[in-house]
Amino acid sequence: MSPADDPDLARALPVLAAVREAAPLVHCLTATVSMQLVADGLLAAGARPMMTETVVEAPVVTTVADALLINLGTLSTDAMDGIPATVAVAREQQRPWVLDPTAIGIAPVRTPLARRLIEQRPTAVRGNASEILALVGEAGGGRGADSTAAAESAAGAAAEVARLTGGAVAVSDAVDLVLDASREARLARGSALLPRVTGTGCLLGALTAACTAVWEDPFEAALAATTWMALAGERAASRATGPGSFRMHLLDALDEIGRRP
Amino acid sequence: MSPADDPDLARALPVLAAVREAAPLVHCLTATVSMQLVADGLLAAGARPMMTETVVEAPVVTTVADALLINLGTLSTDAMDGIPATVAVAREQQRPWVLDPTAIGIAPVRTPLARRLIEQRPTAVRGNASEILALVGEAGGGRGADSTAAAESAAGAAAEVARLTGGAVAVSDAVDLVLDASREARLARGSALLPRVTGTGCLLGALTAACTAVWEDPFEAALAATTWMALAGERAASRATGPGSFRMHLLDALDEIGRRP
Amino acid sequence: MSPADDPDLARALPVLAAVREAAPLVHCLTATVSMQLVADGLLAAGARPMMTETVVEAPVVTTVADALLINLGTLSTDAMDGIPATVAVAREQQRPWVLDPTAIGIAPVRTPLARRLIEQRPTAVRGNASEILALVGEAGGGRGADSTAAAESAAGAAAEVARLTGGAVAVSDAVDLVLDASREARLARGSALLPRVTGTGCLLGALTAACTAVWEDPFEAALAATTWMALAGERAASRATGPGSFRMHLLDALDEIGRRP
Repeated sequence: MSPADDPDLARALPVLAAVREAAPLVHCLTATVSMQLVADGLLAAGARPMMTETVVEAPVVTTVADALLINLGTLSTDAMDGIPATVAVAREQQRPWVLDPTAIGIAPVRTPLARRLIEQRPTAVRGNASEILALVGEAGGGRGADSTAAAESAAGAAAEVARLTGGAVAVSDAVDLVLDASREARLARGSALLPRVTGTGCLLGALTAACTAVWEDPFEAALAATTWMALAGERAASRATGPGSFRMHLLDALDEIGRRP
Repeated sequence: MSPADDPDLARALPVLAAVREAAPLVHCLTATVSMQLVADGLLAAGARPMMTETVVEAPVVTTVADALLINLGTLSTDAMDGIPATVAVAREQQRPWVLDPTAIGIAPVRTPLARRLIEQRPTAVRGNASEILALVGEAGGGRGADSTAAAESAAGAAAEVARLTGGAVAVSDAVDLVLDASREARLARGSALLPRVTGTGCLLGALTAACTAVWEDPFEAALAATTWMALAGERAASRATGPGSFRMHLLDALDEIGRRP
Repeated sequence: MSPADDPDLARALPVLAAVREAAPLVHCLTATVSMQLVADGLLAAGARPMMTETVVEAPVVTTVADALLINLGTLSTDAMDGIPATVAVAREQQRPWVLDPTAIGIAPVRTPLARRLIEQRPTAVRGNASEILALVGEAGGGRGADSTAAAESAAGAAAEVARLTGGAVAVSDAVDLVLDASREARLARGSALLPRVTGTGCLLGALTAACTAVWEDPFEAALAATTWMALAGERAASRATGPGSFRMHLLDALDEIGRRP
């Protein structure tokens, strides 16, 4: 569909165009398992990834990045050490940064770490309903990176997180929810194949960081990233014969959305 | 082929259906290089991956998993520390667990570690001939993750491992060998492209863990996983033009086998 | 194109054939984000990857490898510890080794490490212009793994590195530059999609290591690896609809170049 026929795309398009124009450098401390999809997805979207997580290098190299992504999935010892110092530098340098509290809940290090990071006022937070509920101390039935709770059940928790951070919060689900202190939007787009590929949620966190790098308003940036991923998922699903081919088409589609009908 | 025409598929099918029904959560401490294929393959098969390897988190999160995979490939310092404690918790909680002794032989940490883990009685062990030979202290000419020995040459070693663990042992090769204390099966299926994609052996270990999570008998679970991978490999090979496209089709085929002819 | 019609392919072909004949085992200490593409690419090319980076295992297992790749991207604590000891063993055993100084410049650990490694006389060095400039202490405007400098701007720095190491140096760009103390070649082949997939540069470093394992002359080995990747990129681009499908076709094409027109 062209923007004229798709109001969701029309709204997101200026942000997508700004990412493609600026090619922001996004420094990612992210889950090992999805590092490659995150990096390939950022490149497909027109942004540029950088991935270094040790405490001796990550804080230094983040000074040249345009945005920072902190994803807590498969949290290594290097990342545990590197994350707080790197966030501190991003804050000092007034870079936008995104928190993706992957798989928090019962995990004993990442869960309190995520709550402390909220105090560092991330520009945007992206997670599934279980993770957003766990951020404010509510149990949401999460096991691993999966969510057993619907986005709507985390609407109150998301609003509470937005109040604490002053930024945007995106809850990913069949109907995505994006909100900040004063606005909210719901998006019933995307594909059931998205959760059948490892790291699509992590990639959405990274795209959100890329959008915050080029767009002043965190709410519109987070909504544009969510829309970008959902529309790419729809296009990929129309071409895919299963989760393997969907993953490949998803990267092609991120490159195409808003540029080729 | 439909199950009616394929006795190997017919035998495996109840196990595949049980995985798809239960969507078991499989906690994987696995090689960095193949983490993504392992996670995507579990998702394609209908299971759910979880990947955390630090000693401060892995033992805790494994309490909510339905099965555990320990793969020794690219063994990081985090994994060295995390593996023994995580296996201990899985044993305590009576969760099935699978050992994949990747690339043991001359490597000085993983080799004795694999032998100690055998004493923890894994539900199933999966490896190539060189690795199974090395488990019982015999040299098999392995270099890296490759095997220079045929499965049959490790039949005696595999039987010895099964005697020590009381579980199943699968030796992967052109003709796969699966056995336990009283039964054995050989499977001359699969594709020569399987060893030309990184991590297909690791993924087979993870599928074996998923099958042990839903099927009481480790021998039938290991045989079903081996069959699932072999038939997916055949189907992918019929569509592929090389190792890159084979990898993509393999994930689609894992999703299809036994559901779509 | 057949070798008869493509002089670049004709020159590289004996080296490609030697890799396919010998199936060299390439031990890689490389960026986490591109590990899988590096391993899959080596397998597609007919070589065999091995990936272990801890100081307790990497130096031991490198004794059975035919060549070593050291890539400094996403340098983990394990890799920081493992690299110097592993290079020392490779040197002792007179194995060829390749240095890929990924993303050096402002990163405070990898930058001096890369300069110290130059003193260990790598058989070949592969990087982009910014990285080669940074190796000899010149600023080249690099941010992350990207280069903002053209290969030609690093011609002097590359010659200086070749003088220090006695080996070959390859600078990757739209026009690739390969040189040693007495020869140089330029290659205007490849595809604009290559830098849009994570790890294609890292994979070129690994292919260079595979070629040095089977070919005495480092200059011809490095030129052959650069040609192999560039021609595979051209073939993949002719089939791709975007960066996702390009990545898949690239692996198929590495397997095909010089074997199927």
